[in-house]
Amino acid sequence: MKIKTVDFINEEMILIDQRKLPVEKVFFKTKNYKEGIFAISDMIVRGAPAIGIVGAYTVYLAAKEFENIDKNDFFYKMNLACKEISKARPTAVNLMWAVKEQKKIIKKYENQDISFICKKLLENANEIKKEDIKINKNIGNYGNELIDKNATILTHCNAGALATAGYGTAIGVIRSAHLSGKNIKVFADETRPRLQGARLTAFELVEEGIPATLISDSVAATLIRDKKIDLIVVGADRIASNGDTANKIGTYMLSEIAKKFEIPMYIAAPISTIDFDIKNGKEIIIEERDKSEITHIKGVQIAPKEIDVYNPAFDVTPAENITAIITEKGILYPPFEESISKLMKK
Amino acid sequence: MKIKTVDFINEEMILIDQRKLPVEKVFFKTKNYKEGIFAISDMIVRGAPAIGIVGAYTVYLAAKEFENIDKNDFFYKMNLACKEISKARPTAVNLMWAVKEQKKIIKKYENQDISFICKKLLENANEIKKEDIKINKNIGNYGNELIDKNATILTHCNAGALATAGYGTAIGVIRSAHLSGKNIKVFADETRPRLQGARLTAFELVEEGIPATLISDSVAATLIRDKKIDLIVVGADRIASNGDTANKIGTYMLSEIAKKFEIPMYIAAPISTIDFDIKNGKEIIIEERDKSEITHIKGVQIAPKEIDVYNPAFDVTPAENITAIITEKGILYPPFEESISKLMKK
Repeated sequence: MKIKTVDFINEEMILIDQRKLPVEKVFFKTKNYKEGIFAISDMIVRGAPAIGIVGAYTVYLAAKEFENIDKNDFFYKMNLACKEISKARPTAVNLMWAVKEQKKIIKKYENQDISFICKKLLENANEIKKEDIKINKNIGNYGNELIDKNATILTHCNAGALATAGYGTAIGVIRSAHLSGKNIKVFADETRPRLQGARLTAFELVEEGIPATLISDSVAATLIRDKKIDLIVVGADRIASNGDTANKIGTYMLSEIAKKFEIPMYIAAPISTIDFDIKNGKEIIIEERDKSEITHIKGVQIAPKEIDVYNPAFDVTPAENITAIITEKGILYPPFEESISKLMKK
Repeated sequence: MKIKTVDFINEEMILIDQRKLPVEKVFFKTKNYKEGIFAISDMIVRGAPAIGIVGAYTVYLAAKEFENIDKNDFFYKMNLACKEISKARPTAVNLMWAVKEQKKIIKKYENQDISFICKKLLENANEIKKEDIKINKNIGNYGNELIDKNATILTHCNAGALATAGYGTAIGVIRSAHLSGKNIKVFADETRPRLQGARLTAFELVEEGIPATLISDSVAATLIRDKKIDLIVVGADRIASNGDTANKIGTYMLSEIAKKFEIPMYIAAPISTIDFDIKNGKEIIIEERDKSEITHIKGVQIAPKEIDVYNPAFDVTPAENITAIITEKGILYPPFEESISKLMKK
């Protein structure tokens, strides 16, 4: 992979500043856990798996900050810090998952020295990252089975290398198909408001040399109707036990058009994206983001200041609109309640 | 109306430069017909009816430029100029219609002095403008009959005062409902790529004091599903004899969602938007606009330079997805072939 989304070198977390892509390739470097939280909430890093990894490293940075205090204080402060880190983005279940994994480490080694706990937290964060790349490659390989050799694929937002430790989920599927020699073409939705499609997916596809065309989000429906798109593959921010999937705003709309014109709608996501604590999409709280994302683009005003704005970051695609969920352990088909629970029993 | 979209004072055409709204209120003034063409092609003015009016004044400006040449040369040059003006935007039938109306004036007075022909061309352009405002008010009044007293209305792009001589078509309906004392709320799609919803519709609604919320184009589908929107009303750039309607890219997608969730989808447009020369939407040529509209916003780069782009300005909503077409002569219901042809026989 050319793109290094998250690195951790010499006690420092290094992130490509995704807010500045594709115009500038700038790195955000920090040893401070509050800045780790900022990197997540301000979307220097985004994409559920990448957020999880950054969350895990941020727990480690917090631990380093509290390394030299009394042990009871350490546990108290780490508990608060973990809560704060978990809340940096409300929808991404991977973040909560990664923080929980780190809390398990703290619990497991609670009788050891703080410095030992710190060491284990760093090892675990590194492990989560390594595992993520492996998971993504598996998702890519399973997904590739679903792709015809001349397929034209639509994707929304960025579920690519930049959303993960590397490789990508939805773009991982596209990458695998491309690398296996298939003649793949991609349409990439620009994905308002934050334009992750235009900024990140387009950037990745150009870097990888995969033929790709950028469109505004309103174009997809006519392309699907006119049979210019064979399938849709997107990532997920959170999947309920029944398969209902929260993903970037606009995914639900695509799923309705895909259903009407009978093209497959695939979700590509690691199992960590499945939230077994919630039964269905109604329980997913949708993050509302700042008005300025709609009224301004990169600081340039595009709407009157006085206008009200509704800016949900995600929508929920109902399970019935989803053809299959591609995970690192295989492809899940409806009914998802069954296929998900069966997968977990393995 | 506070907003003066097109004025013609002291031999000069004066346009609000809509490319600069809502941040700057700048006027584009010209006595030169080539600049009139530029105003249309560069979208200083946009919206089918407004383009028609500017087209009519631009024909007059051409005539003034050729006022002192030999009469045969005048007719020859005017013929070329009219062709050029007609082609400034390919999809808007109103432009072609307005230029044809001016050509009729030239034909009618061909035995008169050129200066007399010029006078008649100006009178006719003024008349087209006056008539447009009257038409819009009639559309507004007819449309108001379809609006419940507490309706929440979705609109896409800008079919408002800024798209017409004043008042508006789709926003004319909203304006009439608001002015008649109804408790109207509006959701406005921002309308990528050129953001006419964010820049112009939001601006007009704020100016008029109509409660309005701006959303990115991908949000509408969930709002409709969640019953937060009672009806959709949009303008049209061209309507085929069977009711198929070309309008801003994204309209078709909305029509599919509206149909699925059984909310009304209304087109508000003057009869001049109906192109009787074409049977259905398949005959409508869709204008493809420049790549830079997708890769840049107001000069700011948002996508890699190397990426391919597909940027259609319009899409075609099939007649079967349209609940009614609101014209200045009444409301047309399906089957539109019949209702349109009946209306024309009146």
